[in-house]
Amino acid sequence: MKVIINQAKLLESIQHVTKAISSKTAIPILSGLKIQATQNGLKLTGSDSDITIESYIPMEEEGIQFIDEIEQGEIVVHAKYFPEIIRKLPQDTVQIETDDHLQVTIHSGSAEFHLNGQDAEEYPQISQLQTDSSFELPINLLKNMIKQTVFAVSTSETRPILTGVNLRAEEDLLKFIATDSHRLAASNIPLESPIDTFPSNQVVIPGKSLNELSKILEDTEEKITISISDNQIAFQTENLYFLSRLLDGKYPETSRLIPEESKTIIHTNTKQLLQTVDRASLLARENQNNVIRLQTKENNTIEISSNSPEIGNVEEDLTVNTIEGEDLKISFSSKYMIDALKIMETDQIKIEFTGAMRPFILKPVDNDHILQLILPVRTF
Amino acid sequence: MKVIINQAKLLESIQHVTKAISSKTAIPILSGLKIQATQNGLKLTGSDSDITIESYIPMEEEGIQFIDEIEQGEIVVHAKYFPEIIRKLPQDTVQIETDDHLQVTIHSGSAEFHLNGQDAEEYPQISQLQTDSSFELPINLLKNMIKQTVFAVSTSETRPILTGVNLRAEEDLLKFIATDSHRLAASNIPLESPIDTFPSNQVVIPGKSLNELSKILEDTEEKITISISDNQIAFQTENLYFLSRLLDGKYPETSRLIPEESKTIIHTNTKQLLQTVDRASLLARENQNNVIRLQTKENNTIEISSNSPEIGNVEEDLTVNTIEGEDLKISFSSKYMIDALKIMETDQIKIEFTGAMRPFILKPVDNDHILQLILPVRTF
Repeated sequence: MKVIINQAKLLESIQHVTKAISSKTAIPILSGLKIQATQNGLKLTGSDSDITIESYIPMEEEGIQFIDEIEQGEIVVHAKYFPEIIRKLPQDTVQIETDDHLQVTIHSGSAEFHLNGQDAEEYPQISQLQTDSSFELPINLLKNMIKQTVFAVSTSETRPILTGVNLRAEEDLLKFIATDSHRLAASNIPLESPIDTFPSNQVVIPGKSLNELSKILEDTEEKITISISDNQIAFQTENLYFLSRLLDGKYPETSRLIPEESKTIIHTNTKQLLQTVDRASLLARENQNNVIRLQTKENNTIEISSNSPEIGNVEEDLTVNTIEGEDLKISFSSKYMIDALKIMETDQIKIEFTGAMRPFILKPVDNDHILQLILPVRTF
Repeated sequence: MKVIINQAKLLESIQHVTKAISSKTAIPILSGLKIQATQNGLKLTGSDSDITIESYIPMEEEGIQFIDEIEQGEIVVHAKYFPEIIRKLPQDTVQIETDDHLQVTIHSGSAEFHLNGQDAEEYPQISQLQTDSSFELPINLLKNMIKQTVFAVSTSETRPILTGVNLRAEEDLLKFIATDSHRLAASNIPLESPIDTFPSNQVVIPGKSLNELSKILEDTEEKITISISDNQIAFQTENLYFLSRLLDGKYPETSRLIPEESKTIIHTNTKQLLQTVDRASLLARENQNNVIRLQTKENNTIEISSNSPEIGNVEEDLTVNTIEGEDLKISFSSKYMIDALKIMETDQIKIEFTGAMRPFILKPVDNDHILQLILPVRTF
């Protein structure tokens, strides 16, 4: 194998695929990074068997030449040293060459590195996903849906299925749902065309996979193709192939959690509420889920307060736009509230309560694309 | 005590004094932050008994009003919660008030915090340093001297005296010296006037104190007053008083370590050598002090190389300005070399070698203000 390639482009590809590589893998060769040179370009692969990422570098793209010379071949290189070497090369072009003894020579300027490689034949074959179920989304929409839900997945392995985000197609909506059983985050967008062959209810993508995917994807309006089989999901753009396993098991039915009626509705400015809750969280007791209190008062005012007997307490009045319905005193985790408010896209939100002991929901004031649900804590 | 004060200015002062506060202190009240209000302004104090930092906020400075109202008094507040509260206040003015029960009330906008305080009477008295030995330095010069030496102090407590920086006044020079016995860093500046009463040879300032001091000081040409007693050193500006204990013990005589003659002299570009050494360090074995090799070659070329048998090896030729004297092969820690090169202020440096087994020194090419000495490693 031989390739003369642009250093910055190679480094970008390396950074994408190393997101899937773990040094703690049961299959030793997966701790390496696979490089394949064909006549058409270079393909890098990283995998921890849960996630596989392939990144392609074409000879040229949009008139920019990335590869000056290429000879077919493949090798597996060290996923710690190889990226560091490429990052620190003295010139913006690098030559990478392998010999018959799995030696990799990296040339740039007057620097010459020799690295011990591994036989690419020993690298597991990545099964291409076989499915008829695929659809397209703009990348920035996908990234938004991930951001609006993935933070709410469970970090505990007690119920492994809750560590993933549930993907559903219902009528003309595509839905992402995440819950750790104390709060729930849902995001949906209208589908351009209905998805016929979408596996009904059981597509659950590990939260970790979505976090890594989101880091790699740039915020563009270009489309990404999503393909789903029984146990895997693939995200594909022109130069990226991201494959993740799906979680096994039945995702809980969450729709009945969401209250259908409300007794108190508050309309308020998102950022003001976020900052008030953030201040109150300073004196919320860490060992008790950072609980703070919200209480409705006269004159479109709510009071947010918290109390940590050893340290002190805080109260703050916030003037909201409107309060409709019953008076309310309710306690909840400030962390969940902060998480939910941070991903709201709109200046104004509404919060719908159904009494102090029932879950309450947060929504943007003018659309239903985002729904955040939080279970209160009994303190009053 | 009561004060109405600018939030940003208060926060800046808090950030200065908290650098001295440790939650792991033998004297519980020192884990707090002391606030004293007088008619002239507010004084904050933080201390871990090794370092004490006092920061003053005057009523106004250069026409900017910092304090709108002040009533005398003092209190000790929680050094974790108080700074976080001040940072997140909704408005740029804050009112802080104490009552007879050591309760602190913090008001800003419609937020009201109540914090449990501690009695300032219980806070240890900070002994003001009694000495006739003091001198002035521009702050940016002091910061430079710290930067050029403090990285070379020992991190091991085997010889505690080496964890400090030795301060000397010799003839018309002020010198900073640090060594961990494998390398030495020295920085000196001419004194405007000789220091008569300077304790001769035994002023050793803990490296940690200098690091914290350097973080607090802004890079200005304003003067700082340095006062030294038998066991303490104080750094004082208009609104800052930084007091540190000195290390006890005899600092080694380092001057005889520095070779007086040299057999090989290399003049080279600082940044090019730094980058070449940095690349070679990638394949230097971590468990053997990151040793790399330097070898002189024909045509004003040096080869920098390293070898990690399991991983691979690297060689790089670097064209230098001149090589004078004997041929040389020498091995040394890439880490020490990188540390030394990073603080060189000049584009061009000279390196003076006295054979493969003797310490070598690095200096700026056109002055003697900085001297870096590194002990080689036996490998050839």
